[in-house]
Amino acid sequence: MRLSLDPSTDASEYRFAHRIRTRFAETDAMGVIHHSAYIPYLEESRAALLRWAGHPYDRVRSGGIDFAVLELYVRYRLPLHFDEEVDIHVVVARPTRTTFQIGYLLEVAGETRSSAVTVHGAVDPEGRGVRLPPWLTEVADLTRAED
Amino acid sequence: MRLSLDPSTDASEYRFAHRIRTRFAETDAMGVIHHSAYIPYLEESRAALLRWAGHPYDRVRSGGIDFAVLELYVRYRLPLHFDEEVDIHVVVARPTRTTFQIGYLLEVAGETRSSAVTVHGAVDPEGRGVRLPPWLTEVADLTRAED
Amino acid sequence: MRLSLDPSTDASEYRFAHRIRTRFAETDAMGVIHHSAYIPYLEESRAALLRWAGHPYDRVRSGGIDFAVLELYVRYRLPLHFDEEVDIHVVVARPTRTTFQIGYLLEVAGETRSSAVTVHGAVDPEGRGVRLPPWLTEVADLTRAED
Amino acid sequence: MRLSLDPSTDASEYRFAHRIRTRFAETDAMGVIHHSAYIPYLEESRAALLRWAGHPYDRVRSGGIDFAVLELYVRYRLPLHFDEEVDIHVVVARPTRTTFQIGYLLEVAGETRSSAVTVHGAVDPEGRGVRLPPWLTEVADLTRAED
Repeated sequence: MRLSLDPSTDASEYRFAHRIRTRFAETDAMGVIHHSAYIPYLEESRAALLRWAGHPYDRVRSGGIDFAVLELYVRYRLPLHFDEEVDIHVVVARPTRTTFQIGYLLEVAGETRSSAVTVHGAVDPEGRGVRLPPWLTEVADLTRAED
Repeated sequence: MRLSLDPSTDASEYRFAHRIRTRFAETDAMGVIHHSAYIPYLEESRAALLRWAGHPYDRVRSGGIDFAVLELYVRYRLPLHFDEEVDIHVVVARPTRTTFQIGYLLEVAGETRSSAVTVHGAVDPEGRGVRLPPWLTEVADLTRAED
Repeated sequence: MRLSLDPSTDASEYRFAHRIRTRFAETDAMGVIHHSAYIPYLEESRAALLRWAGHPYDRVRSGGIDFAVLELYVRYRLPLHFDEEVDIHVVVARPTRTTFQIGYLLEVAGETRSSAVTVHGAVDPEGRGVRLPPWLTEVADLTRAED
Repeated sequence: MRLSLDPSTDASEYRFAHRIRTRFAETDAMGVIHHSAYIPYLEESRAALLRWAGHPYDRVRSGGIDFAVLELYVRYRLPLHFDEEVDIHVVVARPTRTTFQIGYLLEVAGETRSSAVTVHGAVDPEGRGVRLPPWLTEVADLTRAED
């Protein structure tokens, strides 16, 4: 287990945020957003972060690298509801030779709803681990990874 | 528009059925199974039908053919609920040189809940249309496609 | 079967469009957006249309009315890919006492990728059919339903 | 953060397992099962466990209790592929007055693919924390929670 990041619940510690709006298809019979729907939100925000940082994910992939998800942690604090706009603050942190972590803070109108961490490994198209591209460390710096 | 099949609501007219159990993740805030969740049910039942007919879909795909979905029609008659077991009756029909249709009847304990049709085209890995494999007509006969 | 709308592939015939960006989670092993992922796109665009027309869906629902999906038709013309921005043109049409239809045109950079129709019925929280709210006809006019 | 369980990768330490078959809809453009698809697998297996233990989840819910997901952790060791049959071994552990944890081991033909933990809290229909039902401890014992 590599997961070690503890994402801050203080939005001012993040430099990048991505906004999504919850979909009705993502609600469940408890009347809230189903906990599995958060995972694509996280993925969409890290894709948005890579685009913002000048490394769109489809270009990363066509360059022969994928960032496989090795570990995932989500803490559900308060539920999300249909049609809410969620600000997802994202930070890239703890790059090693082959892995890095991403921290997420999900807020609605400034209220913390959830936080999350994903651990990623760079892999080639056959799924074998490869070295992180050097720009990943710059992206981590850009997002002010607090280590 | 090629879709022309009108699936029977009489289960005795089908020779193959596949049973699924609805998931809580597939419910929505109206307390029923969300209408988008039916689409993977249909796909899972046609994969089960191909397996039953001796042509598992992963072998079809590794043979260089995919059955792309060209059209989709679903009629929602009565809702599905969490934890219900759904019998999906499936029939393959109307093969042409490059396309075929599949009809579906969704029942719970003998009660019609939904019916559906998909239209498929055989494509190569680049997505170009190719001729249907000859065994497809046999599969259609096996499922007693009423034309 | 009530579905009778044939959505125009001419974007200029629509007054409202909603843009979504495809998610990586929505791709499949054929390398394109899975056909089931379109259904939440359609739902998100009609929610956006209702919001634009001054009748946000959560307010409609808290007013005791749901717009149940009775029928769904999708025609897949050209695939969608990861990270594409899709313009979904939407029109509300053919209101009756209890039902209406919605037509959709999905374009990427002006190229038609898909079209779709949903048929909806107004229902109360117990799922019983009720009369359409009177403003629905105005919304249909707003979107220039071509009957 | 309450999550403290470290699920065994030795299947013989579990008394209950549930088998699912992966769906094509759950694959992604990397050709494997998308990491978000695992979350409904976990949910389906704990629903199967509750049914096996004599406390089906819909009866739990109609009795006025929901088991909200408070935390989620997944470790992805080896990918899952389309049409694989996955044995999900499940254990209930560490009940407190209001929370409990569930551990999961995902295997295909005896090979470890993934492990996971969820932390749950008993809530009433308004989402307020309530005491765990007393039978939950018995279910934990049944599944041989190694504390």
